[in-house]
Amino acid sequence: MELRSQTFIPTTKETPKGAEAVSHALSLRAGLLHMVSAGIYTYLPLGYKVLRNIEEIVRGRMEQTGAQELFMPALQPLELWQKTGRDKDLEEVMLHVQDRKGRKLCLGPTHEELITEIASKYISSYKQLPVTLYQIQTKYRDEMRPRFGLVRGCEFMMKDAYSFDADESGLNASYEKMLDAYQKIFTECGLEYVVSEADPGAMGGNVSHEFMVPAEIGEDMLYACAGCGLYAREAGQCEHCGQALSESRMIEIGHVFKLGTKYSVPLQATFLDQHGKRNPLVMGCYGIGVSRLLSAIIETNHDEKGIIWPARVSPYRAVIVVLNQEFIPQARRLAERIETGGGSVLIDDRNESAGVKFRDAQLLGIPRILVMGRTFADRKEIEVESRADGERSAMSPDAAAEHV
Amino acid sequence: MELRSQTFIPTTKETPKGAEAVSHALSLRAGLLHMVSAGIYTYLPLGYKVLRNIEEIVRGRMEQTGAQELFMPALQPLELWQKTGRDKDLEEVMLHVQDRKGRKLCLGPTHEELITEIASKYISSYKQLPVTLYQIQTKYRDEMRPRFGLVRGCEFMMKDAYSFDADESGLNASYEKMLDAYQKIFTECGLEYVVSEADPGAMGGNVSHEFMVPAEIGEDMLYACAGCGLYAREAGQCEHCGQALSESRMIEIGHVFKLGTKYSVPLQATFLDQHGKRNPLVMGCYGIGVSRLLSAIIETNHDEKGIIWPARVSPYRAVIVVLNQEFIPQARRLAERIETGGGSVLIDDRNESAGVKFRDAQLLGIPRILVMGRTFADRKEIEVESRADGERSAMSPDAAAEHV
Repeated sequence: MELRSQTFIPTTKETPKGAEAVSHALSLRAGLLHMVSAGIYTYLPLGYKVLRNIEEIVRGRMEQTGAQELFMPALQPLELWQKTGRDKDLEEVMLHVQDRKGRKLCLGPTHEELITEIASKYISSYKQLPVTLYQIQTKYRDEMRPRFGLVRGCEFMMKDAYSFDADESGLNASYEKMLDAYQKIFTECGLEYVVSEADPGAMGGNVSHEFMVPAEIGEDMLYACAGCGLYAREAGQCEHCGQALSESRMIEIGHVFKLGTKYSVPLQATFLDQHGKRNPLVMGCYGIGVSRLLSAIIETNHDEKGIIWPARVSPYRAVIVVLNQEFIPQARRLAERIETGGGSVLIDDRNESAGVKFRDAQLLGIPRILVMGRTFADRKEIEVESRADGERSAMSPDAAAEHV
Repeated sequence: MELRSQTFIPTTKETPKGAEAVSHALSLRAGLLHMVSAGIYTYLPLGYKVLRNIEEIVRGRMEQTGAQELFMPALQPLELWQKTGRDKDLEEVMLHVQDRKGRKLCLGPTHEELITEIASKYISSYKQLPVTLYQIQTKYRDEMRPRFGLVRGCEFMMKDAYSFDADESGLNASYEKMLDAYQKIFTECGLEYVVSEADPGAMGGNVSHEFMVPAEIGEDMLYACAGCGLYAREAGQCEHCGQALSESRMIEIGHVFKLGTKYSVPLQATFLDQHGKRNPLVMGCYGIGVSRLLSAIIETNHDEKGIIWPARVSPYRAVIVVLNQEFIPQARRLAERIETGGGSVLIDDRNESAGVKFRDAQLLGIPRILVMGRTFADRKEIEVESRADGERSAMSPDAAAEHV
């Protein structure tokens, strides 16, 4: 358990200047983020708890596919990018660094070149295939117009996975496994998402799918059919039922690509097949915007009072609002009992008014709010409020611990 | 459990060119690290498991002191450093980045300026004190001569903590708590270390302590007394027993500083005390070289055959070397039983010679090596070898699971 009086959660009542999106404003007001400079943020303790919860969901589902975690550096030699020509393709968004010895480096906006070099060094035989490697790591992008907090930033957290197969059918199997894992990840994050075929763009390859969350601040467009619920890339009429399609803005949260041999050929990542013949590795790559997920979750899970965290990503399982300092020992005991079922409990033990503490609990968005106030003084009952629907009921501490 | 045939652990027999230290050579040979460029490394899956184990030890002990985890960006505005004058002090080792809009940024070699700015924004009253914040995060250094793998790199992982107190006595209490946590961390990492008073240097303040591990490749010097085991900063005679001191090379693994108000004054990080008077925050900072620990552990825990992991940092609890493919189902059952006690088991199921598999198991350094070979065929017994002392004994699968 953690005591609010000793916890660094700097909440504010006012909406900060310059916050263009609800998720951005709530992230700052609830003490999740601190803006260092445009597009560059510090995750304060509460925000970092949520980020790590999201990472654990992603990690769990990645491991289940058999993908193995590694950790590549952010600094990459520019000459590696020259081999695929992407130093030119991505020139605008790439941040460059030169060291004292004149070595030309960049801060990786992505890691296809580097992972392919690793594969070229360590994969030599069909016996080692298939292999999927992934990392959860910081990426950089020289963003002309950083916006909406974590939605479009200069330094952000990604999960990027890369599959290596012997042929197209192997790639298809790896790709399907990832599509399946992605659906589970986004569902566990409490998101309603849309999967859509997409243009592979600068990443290359010929097949790609995007995972998107409908939201006003989205910078991608899909056209929705109110009749059958399908989405299309182009405006017009629904292919299915003929109804007119209407505009829907989307936040991209994941993108997967069948890359084929786009990187393995120029970087000479080859293997010997059963017949001793040398072939290029057939690759897929799979991204999730981990930090962007945090914003997408808030953008689609809030009300006028504050955030409403889905259970799996919530920084705490419950918050106990103690309105009389005498109840703190009992609040601690209740917290201990709840924590035996997993998760952590926040106790608001501050010497503040009931109004301040209620507003703060609503703002923070913890799924269950347990109030120890008048009903506890009168008849030893806790008022338990569900943050999502505001339903309240009074119950004994036993029942409350059980309920949470 | 993981099957070696499906796990990306690219071991090599030969010592790679350019590896100047035993730990560096073993990290490359055991498939822990891949060198991207001088001083820049990828942690391959096995190396990343070890790094995460070290991180968990650090995190556990930090939480116990009441320190709260946050995550600051690597990119920092240069103007923040101009306020303390450290843009000049650290000019040589700082990597600079300029974005498309001309914004001047650097890749943080450390985070005193940024954390002090955060404190100045969110701490305003003595009621919020003490606060200690920490992060486990990537740091950058324009290293003229990167050496010894992770010991002196350009991109590396640090734990950095920062304490904020109302006065000197508060700082002293925070500092003592950290000293205590550090001792537990390094002991759990399996390291024999020395604590020594040190010169605060560019970090500032007037008191600082270094944690060091004696090792040939160390770049710091302490003078040891063979008689009473004490260390001194200067050569000469032991203050205690008068014996001549002899040279001892040391790797620095941790460094803590009483900073005082060196950063809080120029960055105006102040608070109101009980009497309504405004005072600067009194700070301490506490660093651990998390990735360097990985090297220091190998440097002091190995033999001529390979690494010998201390239990808490080992990537696997045990490795089962299966010398007959028919035993694989029994190996899986044994692994499952061991894993009920926590930790993960590696099964070497590859179609390789016994010699190759034995040598590989020794190189990887997993504390327990369980062999299913002739004694298993003859009388259903597992040969259990302790990697540290090479002791072997045959026992039933039940006893082996219990033993591990």
